[in-house]
Amino acid sequence: MPLSTKPYRGARDFYPEDNRLRKYIFSIWRKTVESYGYEEYDAPILEPLELYLAKTGEEIVNEQTYVFEDRGKRKVVIRPEMTPTVSRMVAAKRQELAYPLRWYSIPNLWRYERPQNGRLREHWQLNVDIFGVESSGAEIELINLICDIFKNFGAKESMFEIKLNHRGLIDFILSDYLKLSKTSIQKVSKLIDKLHKMEKTKFIESLDNSLSPKEIASGSVEKLMTILSVKSIKDLPSEVKNNDFALEIIEIEKKLKKQGINNALFDPSLMRGFDYYSGLIFEAYDKNPDNNRSMMGGGRYDGLVGLFGVAPVPTVGFGWGDVTLVNFLNGHHLLPKLGNELDIYATTIGQNIDKANTVIDKLRKSGINIALDLSKKKLADQIKTASKKQIKYVLIVGDKELASAKYVLRNLETSIEQVLTETELINKFKINDSH
Amino acid sequence: MPLSTKPYRGARDFYPEDNRLRKYIFSIWRKTVESYGYEEYDAPILEPLELYLAKTGEEIVNEQTYVFEDRGKRKVVIRPEMTPTVSRMVAAKRQELAYPLRWYSIPNLWRYERPQNGRLREHWQLNVDIFGVESSGAEIELINLICDIFKNFGAKESMFEIKLNHRGLIDFILSDYLKLSKTSIQKVSKLIDKLHKMEKTKFIESLDNSLSPKEIASGSVEKLMTILSVKSIKDLPSEVKNNDFALEIIEIEKKLKKQGINNALFDPSLMRGFDYYSGLIFEAYDKNPDNNRSMMGGGRYDGLVGLFGVAPVPTVGFGWGDVTLVNFLNGHHLLPKLGNELDIYATTIGQNIDKANTVIDKLRKSGINIALDLSKKKLADQIKTASKKQIKYVLIVGDKELASAKYVLRNLETSIEQVLTETELINKFKINDSH
Repeated sequence: MPLSTKPYRGARDFYPEDNRLRKYIFSIWRKTVESYGYEEYDAPILEPLELYLAKTGEEIVNEQTYVFEDRGKRKVVIRPEMTPTVSRMVAAKRQELAYPLRWYSIPNLWRYERPQNGRLREHWQLNVDIFGVESSGAEIELINLICDIFKNFGAKESMFEIKLNHRGLIDFILSDYLKLSKTSIQKVSKLIDKLHKMEKTKFIESLDNSLSPKEIASGSVEKLMTILSVKSIKDLPSEVKNNDFALEIIEIEKKLKKQGINNALFDPSLMRGFDYYSGLIFEAYDKNPDNNRSMMGGGRYDGLVGLFGVAPVPTVGFGWGDVTLVNFLNGHHLLPKLGNELDIYATTIGQNIDKANTVIDKLRKSGINIALDLSKKKLADQIKTASKKQIKYVLIVGDKELASAKYVLRNLETSIEQVLTETELINKFKINDSH
Repeated sequence: MPLSTKPYRGARDFYPEDNRLRKYIFSIWRKTVESYGYEEYDAPILEPLELYLAKTGEEIVNEQTYVFEDRGKRKVVIRPEMTPTVSRMVAAKRQELAYPLRWYSIPNLWRYERPQNGRLREHWQLNVDIFGVESSGAEIELINLICDIFKNFGAKESMFEIKLNHRGLIDFILSDYLKLSKTSIQKVSKLIDKLHKMEKTKFIESLDNSLSPKEIASGSVEKLMTILSVKSIKDLPSEVKNNDFALEIIEIEKKLKKQGINNALFDPSLMRGFDYYSGLIFEAYDKNPDNNRSMMGGGRYDGLVGLFGVAPVPTVGFGWGDVTLVNFLNGHHLLPKLGNELDIYATTIGQNIDKANTVIDKLRKSGINIALDLSKKKLADQIKTASKKQIKYVLIVGDKELASAKYVLRNLETSIEQVLTETELINKFKINDSH
C-alpha cells in the first residue's frame, strides 16, 4: 500500500502559496513589535514536564499536552504555550538582563484537541512580554501595540474590541463582595468563563447548582447577575467600583482613550484560563458576527519568574495565534493578494542550457532573482510553466538571443515584449524596484 | 525546590543576541536560494512513523528518533529530517504543481543522540530541492547555489571543498568490478563511510574481516584500496573510469570548472547514510584542520515521491545544518558583529511617562523604532540600561524637553548630543537610513 500523503491530523502543510500568507502575517507582527523595541528570542519546542505542572491550567497539562518519555526516561512536553519557557529564560539570567526587558517570539505550539474552526493542534503564536515594569504603563503599551498590529493589518477600530478585567477585582467580587467559599469560587469562575456560550436561564440554573443554600439565600446570584450585566465599569455597585483594582481599570481605560483607543473596555465576564495571571487581563474579540470569538489575550503575571528560585519580576504579556487571525482577516476582507516574488523566469532550449546559465548567473549576481527552466521542454511549455507559477516576466534565451546577446523579456500580464541586453536588463530591474 | 532554568539537554535557548546570529544565517540562506527562484514551504514537526520506515536510514529511525504514541494511539515522530516530508507534499499535489519545482525550507529537526561538538538534539536545517529535472543541470545548479551561499557568508574557495560521488558508481565498483556479495557490500559501505575516522591498518584489517575468503583471494582489498586512494577521478582503473556514472561525474566536474568552481571534486570514499539516494551525491567539508568535517550534503533521489503511489519525480536536494555552519564561520573568523537593531532608547522621569509616550508614539508612527524606559528609575540609570542593551542613541524626554518640544539625542558611542524637534528627529532617522 502506498504511503499516505496527508499531514498529521490537526496540523498544516504550508505550500509556497500558504507560506506567503504566513510570511506576511509574521512580517506585520515583527515590524510592529520591533517598532516598540521588542527583541526576538526562541527556545526548544521540547521542555521538561515539570515546567508546566506548576502554573499552566490543569486541563491543558492533563488532557491537552503532547507528553512522552524520551529514550533517557525523561518526561518531556511539546510546548503548549510559551509563557513558562520565557519565564524560565528570564530567571536563568535574572541578574544580567537590563530591565525593562522587551521580548517577543513566534513559536509553534501544540495541543492535543479535536481540530475545529479556529482551533488546530499546531499553531503559531506571537508572544510579546515586557519584564520589570510595575506600573500600568506596561499594560497600556501592550494594548497600544495590539491596536497598532490590527491597524497594520488594515483593520478598523470597529472590527474588533478589547475586553479588560482584573484578577484582583474578580477575587474581590467573588470572595469579599459575594463572600463565596473557595469551592464555590472555583465553580463560579469556570461558569463565568462560559457565560457567552450559554442561555441566560441555563446559566442562572447552573449558578444555583454551584452555590451553597446559604450563599443563594444571601442574594449572591442576583448580585452577580447585576455585575455581569453592566455595560460600563461606572455602572458597577459603588462598593465594587471604588475597589482599587476597579480604579486601576478606570485609569487604564482613560489613558487609552487619550491615546485614541476607544474600543478597550471593562468586561466583568472576562476570566482567562491560566492560573498564573495576577493583575490586569485582556482579550481582543473579532466583532464579525460570524466569528465572534477571542483572537488573542494576555495580562499581568508577576509571580512566574520567581518560581525558579530568583527574585520575582513584574511581567505583562500576551499571545496571539495565527489561525484565528487568518479567520479575522478573511472575514473582514483584509487578506492581501500575494504573488510569486521571483523577478524573472528564464526559458531556453535544451542544448543551450550551459550557455544560458552563464548569462543568467550574471543577471543573478547583479541582484535579479531569476530561475532557469531546466526541463528541456518546448519553449511554449516553459512559458506556460512560468504562467502557472504566477511569475510576471519571462526571459527568452534561445539560439538567436544567445548569438546576438539580446534577450526577449515578455510581461505575461500585458504580453508586451522588449528586446534587452544584459546591462539593460540589470538596469530595468535594479533602478525600478517595483518593476 | 525551585524549577530548573535549563533548557532540555542538547537543545538551545536563543536569547536575543543568539537569535540575531540565527536571523543573520537564515537571511543569507533565504536571500541566496530566492535569487535562484526557490520558494519557501513548511510542514508540521510531527509526522506519522510510517513516513520514515520506508526509506530513512535504519539507525536513524531505530535509535535516534523521537517517536511516541499520541493520545489517539497513533505512532508519531518529531521529524529527524525534511526529505520524506517534502516528498509527501509533492506527491499530494503531483498533478497540480508546475515543474521544475524549486522549493526550500528551514525546519528544526530532532535526533536523540549524545550532544557533542557540532551535533545537537535540535538543529535548524536549510533544505533545498529541485523536482522534475532529469539532467545533471539540477546537480550543477545546486552545487553553484551552495558555493554562492558560502560566498555570501564571506567564505573563500580555499576554506571548503565539495566532495562528489555517485550511487551508481559505488554500486558498480562494489558489485560489478569487485564482485562482492550483498552482505559484503553492506558491511563495506559502512566501513568506507568511516574511512577518515580510522587508521589505515585498522581499516584494512576491518575490510579483511568483512569479506569472504574467496573475495579476499580475488584481490578485492587491494583493488578497493587503490580506488580509495585516487586523488582524481582520472586516476581510477580504466574499467571503472569509463563507466557511465564516472563519466557523469567527470562531466559535472568539467561544467562546474567552467563556471569558476574548482573545489568540487570526486571523492571515492563519500557514501552518505540515507537509503534513498539514487544518483550523484555530494557533501561540503570545512577545510579548517580543527574542524575538518562534513557541513552539509545531498544528492539525487529519484524514487522517493513515487513511494506515495504516484508517478516518480526526478529530484535533487540537500540539507545544511546551522550548528556546523556556525562552527565553520567561527573557525574562519567570518561571524559578523550584530548589534541591537533598535534606533532610539527614550528616557523620561516617572510623572512624564504619559506625555513622553505621546511624543514617542508620533516618532514611532513616522517609522522610527523607539522604546520608552518605563522603569521610573533615575535618568542616569535609564541611560545605563540603554548602554547595557547596546543601543546607539538615547533620547532624553524630561521636563525641560517636553516644555520646549525639543529633545536631547545622545550618541552613546561618541557622547555627542544634539537638541532636536520632532520633525528634525524624524528627518534624521528617515533620510539617512544608516544614521
